[in-house]
This record gives sequence, C-alpha cells and structure tokens, in this order.
Amino acid sequence: MTLLGRFTVVPDGTVTTPQGFRAGGLHCGLKKTERNDLGAIVCDVPAAVAAVYTLNAFQAAPLRVTQESIAAGGRLQAMLVNSGNANACTGEQGLADARAMRDALARRLGIAEELVGVTSTGVIGELLPMTKVLAGIEALPEKVNAAGGEDFSQAILTTDLVKKVICVRVNIGGREVHIAGAAKGSGMIHPNMATMLGFVTTDANIESKHLQQLLGEATDSTFNMITVDGDTSTNDMVVVMASGLAGGEALQPGHADWEDFAAAFRHVSEHLAKAIARDGEGATKLIEVNVHGAVSQEAARAIAKTVVGSSLVKTACFGADANWGRIIAAVGRAGQPVNTETVDVSLGGITVLKQSKPVAFDEDRAEAYLKGDIVQIDVHLNMSDSGATAWGCDLTYDYVRINAAYRT
Amino acid sequence: MTLLGRFTVVPDGTVTTPQGFRAGGLHCGLKKTERNDLGAIVCDVPAAVAAVYTLNAFQAAPLRVTQESIAAGGRLQAMLVNSGNANACTGEQGLADARAMRDALARRLGIAEELVGVTSTGVIGELLPMTKVLAGIEALPEKVNAAGGEDFSQAILTTDLVKKVICVRVNIGGREVHIAGAAKGSGMIHPNMATMLGFVTTDANIESKHLQQLLGEATDSTFNMITVDGDTSTNDMVVVMASGLAGGEALQPGHADWEDFAAAFRHVSEHLAKAIARDGEGATKLIEVNVHGAVSQEAARAIAKTVVGSSLVKTACFGADANWGRIIAAVGRAGQPVNTETVDVSLGGITVLKQSKPVAFDEDRAEAYLKGDIVQIDVHLNMSDSGATAWGCDLTYDYVRINAAYRT
Repeated sequence: MTLLGRFTVVPDGTVTTPQGFRAGGLHCGLKKTERNDLGAIVCDVPAAVAAVYTLNAFQAAPLRVTQESIAAGGRLQAMLVNSGNANACTGEQGLADARAMRDALARRLGIAEELVGVTSTGVIGELLPMTKVLAGIEALPEKVNAAGGEDFSQAILTTDLVKKVICVRVNIGGREVHIAGAAKGSGMIHPNMATMLGFVTTDANIESKHLQQLLGEATDSTFNMITVDGDTSTNDMVVVMASGLAGGEALQPGHADWEDFAAAFRHVSEHLAKAIARDGEGATKLIEVNVHGAVSQEAARAIAKTVVGSSLVKTACFGADANWGRIIAAVGRAGQPVNTETVDVSLGGITVLKQSKPVAFDEDRAEAYLKGDIVQIDVHLNMSDSGATAWGCDLTYDYVRINAAYRT
Repeated sequence: MTLLGRFTVVPDGTVTTPQGFRAGGLHCGLKKTERNDLGAIVCDVPAAVAAVYTLNAFQAAPLRVTQESIAAGGRLQAMLVNSGNANACTGEQGLADARAMRDALARRLGIAEELVGVTSTGVIGELLPMTKVLAGIEALPEKVNAAGGEDFSQAILTTDLVKKVICVRVNIGGREVHIAGAAKGSGMIHPNMATMLGFVTTDANIESKHLQQLLGEATDSTFNMITVDGDTSTNDMVVVMASGLAGGEALQPGHADWEDFAAAFRHVSEHLAKAIARDGEGATKLIEVNVHGAVSQEAARAIAKTVVGSSLVKTACFGADANWGRIIAAVGRAGQPVNTETVDVSLGGITVLKQSKPVAFDEDRAEAYLKGDIVQIDVHLNMSDSGATAWGCDLTYDYVRINAAYRT
C-alpha cells in the first residue's frame, strides 16, 4: 500500500473494491477478435450519481439515454458499456437501440429502467448489431460479480494497450471509504471533457449534488487537461456512482474529512487521466507540461494544453530532440498573456531558456532524459502566481499507422 | 496561358515577371547542404507595400525590423530573406543582427535602410552566424537579376519539397499588369496568418493602403485557411511590393477594373496557400474542405479549419479510409452552431451522410478516390447560406520522421 497524504492506494483494487459494487464483461461480437466488448458495473443499491459529458455537438445516443435516466431519478444502479461501436450519428434508430440496451439490462436485473445508464465507444456512424448486443446483455448478469473488475476494464478498451484502473482508501470519520476508477482512452482525446470513458465507484455516503461538484472540479484539472490528438469524441463521459454502503455521516463541504475525500477523489481522476495520456495511440511516453507564473489559472491551463498538444512538441519528444523553440512557439500562440522577455523553460530540470534567453545545456544529457518514459516540461512565465499542469503523449509512427487503418 | 476569368496565368512566371523586379539567391552557409539559404527581391523603385504578420506572441526579430522599415516610409525597395535559422527568441542580439542584415543590404544597394525588409525561417533560438550572413549579403546583389526568380524561390525553402511560385496577368485599363508570388511553407503551418513566408510582387499602380486592404481580405480566405500541423510560427509573414511601373490610373476601389485586379490577386494568394498545404511536411495529398449552409462565414471558416486540421481526418485520408465519422466529430467540436439532424457529407462527390444519416456508398469507389492526390470533402450544414473553404494535407509517417529529427 502506497501512502499518499491522507489516503492510500489499494494494490489490485478495481471498481468492485468499494462496497456494494459488482462488475463483469464478455465478448458479444462487436469486436472482431475475442476480446470483451460488453460490460457492466452493478450496484447492490441505487447509487448517488454524477456525470460529465462530451461537449461535441454530435453527442452520441447512449449519452442522451444516460442523461434521461439520471434526470428521471438522480440515481443509477447499473452502467452498461460496449466497445467496438460508438452508436453515434445513428439517428432515431441509434437512440432506440440505446434505449433497448438500457431496458434489456434493467429487465434482466429486475430494476427500473431509469436506474440504468448506457455508454458506447468505437466506430461512429454504424448501427449496432442489436441481436448480438441483446444476446450479450442477456448473458451479462451471470458474468457480473465481485471479482469481475478486471473483465469490466477489458470490455471498455478499443485501441488501448493497457487497462487503466486505480483504487484508493481514505479514512472518513473512522470508517474506511474506497474510491475506484476504470477508464478507456487512446484516441480522440482532447481537453474539454469527455474525450474518454471513465467509471468511478465509491462506497462513500455522499449525495449526488456534492458528488457532481467534486467531479466537476476534478474534471477541470485532470480529464480536461489531457490531450492525445486534439479530437473531441462524440461519446465520452465520466460517471461516478456512490453506493453509500461505507455508512457514516454524509460527506459534504464542511465535513471534517471533506478535504481528504476530495484529495482522494482528485487522485483517482488524475491517475486515470495520466494513464489515458500515457497510453495515447502510438505513444511511447507521457509528456507533462507544468506552467507557472501565469496571470490566471485560465491562462496557465490554455498554455499548458497548447504546448502538450503541439504536434511539433510531440514529435520532438518522440525524437528525443531538446527543440525548445517549438515549446516557446506553442506558448506564444496560445492566445494568452505572455511577457516575451521573461520566460524560463526547463526539460526534466535541465534549464534551456532563462528570461527568454537560450541557456547553454548538455545536449547529450537532455537527449538521454528525453529518451525516458516521462518527459516533464516546465514553463515559468514569471508574470504572476497561477499555474496548471497538462498531460499528453508523443506523436509517433504508430499513431499514424493505427489511425490510417483503424476502420478497415 | 490558362484563361481564368478576367486574368491569365503566365507559364514560368516568377516574382521578377512584374516590371521593375529583380531577384536572386545564393548559399551562404546556413543550410548544411549546398542549397540556397539567402535571397532577395529588389525593385527598381521604392515600391508600395503591404504586409501581414504572425499572431504568435514571440514574433521574431526580422519581423520587427520589417515593421520598423515599413512604418518609417511606407515603401520597400528590397526584401531580404534567409532560411535555415529563424532568428526568433534570440533577444537583443537577434534584433541587432536583423538590423545589421537590413543595413548591410541597404548599404550594398545604395538605398536607405528603411527601404529594406528582412525575414527569416528555420530553427528557433539560435543566433545567426553573422560572418557568413554578412559575407552572403555582400555577394548577393551580383546574383540579383531579372532571371533570378527561380534562385530566390529556392532560397526561401526549408523542409519544402517543391517551389511555390505563380504569376498572373490581368488587363487594367488596357495595360498589362502582373501579379506574381513565391511562398515557403511546409511545417508550423496553421490558420491565423503568418504561418509561412509569402512574397508577392506586382507592377500595378496602387497605393499601399489599398494593397493592404486587398492583402487583408485575401489572407482571410486563403493563407489563414490552411493548416499543416496546427502550429503557428514565430516568423511568418506575407509581403506585397507594388512597383507601379505598369502605369495607368491608380488602382483603388471604384476603378473600373478593381474587381478584376482583386480576383487576380486573390488567385495568386490562393494558389500559394494551396501549394503550401499540398507540400506540407510529409504530405502525400491536398485536402480541401468546403463548408456550405453555415449560419455565418465565421462559423463556416471555423468548421472548415477544424475538419481539415483534425489529426484523425488527416490520417484517414492518408489511409484512404472513408471514415466520415471523424469528419462529423470534427464538425461537432468546432464550437459553432450545427444542426445535428441536417448535415450532409460527401467525399469527392460521393455522398456518405445525408441529413445526418449514413448513406450506403461504394467503399471501393471511395477508397479509389481517397488514394488520389486531392481529396475534396464537402460538408453541407443546411442551416443558412454561408460557406468557406480550407486546405490542408494528410498526416503521414514522413511527417513524424521529418519532425522527430528536424534539428539534430
């Protein structure tokens, strides 16, 4: 167990570690290979819920159905997910299909339809093969159990290479409370939410409105601060379900342990966000850009995202080339206040620019650093005291290979 | 000669075709290979001038010097350019170097310093080797002549594969007037100007203020509508010099042939812009995105640029994959009004989406089309009557290769 301030990471924890959650997955035939492509998280009780959705105008059908469910009763007891087909840009039929998926799982679980949410990821614009999907949903509850967190994590992946899972434990009023998360990312990842799928479970006793507040704040500084390729998906969302089964006094701002819970929640979000960035399509490394000394947090965030999203910065990191000119060019085009005479830039602590003037540095040392798995870029604007961090990945031959041949 | 409305394209025309212009280039040692890396356009008389500059906050030193020159007298008689080094983020020394370049050429030509503009392209953040540059400037006037347009075009290239040159002739009040252009592009190309170098010469009799108006309008619909990689350079600019030597009544709005001249000017701009997009780093094809039926031209432009700049659309074009879902996803994230029920999309005239519903199409025919040199994507929003066109290129293995190893 790793100690991180007031919370600890639970080794091998999954979305079923928090009390009251079961999960599972199976292969129903949406993916060509025998990998899981249908999964669900099921709670023993109707869970408090919070969600954030893509800002893409073409929001996919399942997101609309999930919104309908949450609007109806403010709680969810099951989240159904499929990969391999996004059910986006599929018109009225797509919406009917998403509702049919929700209704089928609700029937099979013996719960109300509005307690089920649905999400999908995969190719846009193709109708779901509903015979396969409905057969899969019929079989799914048998696969859903307390040990099914791994199978579920597998079911949400598309071109992802690794599962993205985390679980933390935090002491709230003397009780053990868990927060766990699983995410899917890889491509079509960009700031402004919901450029991914994220599932967070917790046994905390917390109302939906406070959960939504926490999720909103965490999203701004984690999920919305990652980019893989600048493309915002039609489908993506993060949903949090709180079973409340850890008991105790309800968590809300003002609760003695609120900040600890918030920190733990933020850690789960940040872990998942960074895992998505690191596993971006074709990526060989995680890039972390820290902006310091900006005039506002908004400016710091915009600059950090612009740098980490620059194709030229990304290819330079892939090539282990300490080409800081590309970093400074990205800072300069972010559309934010910059004093062009006072900028410092360092790469893994190696200063390459000081007060906007090039600093002689050891190129071999810089190259060795850039060949590592993590590249940390620090940009200090020396204007005021706002800062932000963004995460991304390098742009590689494999990104091109994966995306030039994804659909065919 | 190709007839294009009221103007004609002059085969083999260069920036020296308009009366009064000479040009040339040589290798002074900024590029590692023996290619030209220093060039100039010189006019027999002080020319009326217009210019647009990068919006990057880190505007390079030579742009500041060119602005100083133009501000001093409103005319330019010579434009000096080097490739291989951007003289950007080089502080006071860089500014002094750019002024020294300007002054050296002015002295050598026997003209006032404020009649000389300077521009640079290449690596950011390295001081110019001024001994080589000044020796080159000393030798340059001997290379400058009426046949030197080709050599000049070569001198402005970095990772470009082909020269980008055009010359048109238009009849103005019974006189032949020429407009010619040369451009440099390839990487760090993105909407919002000045993500490139462009040099336009004309013998038209026109005042600077009208030239600036024309350039501004043409830039909005041509140079600002191209993207290669989303990165806006610190250096780029377009400068127009008008010798006036064709004579005749001064061109201005209201002149009987003003629209013909404007159309010819716009054609030169569009030709250069498209040539830059087509020759983007690693590109195998030109992508043209036409947006129709938008609520405003601003919306149409934003959507067209978002689609043509999408890494996923670019890789799909590289892979000849008719993955229209990526197009629609880009339309939806452009932040502009879209009716998600009324969108049509076609690829080279092959309709793939009609009223936001997938249309069955011949995949083999679409793939064959997408394997061509030019991919035309039409997006009709069916909302109102505004339209725009943007140009870009595919994202390929070679883009990654070129940019992972550019500096080293």
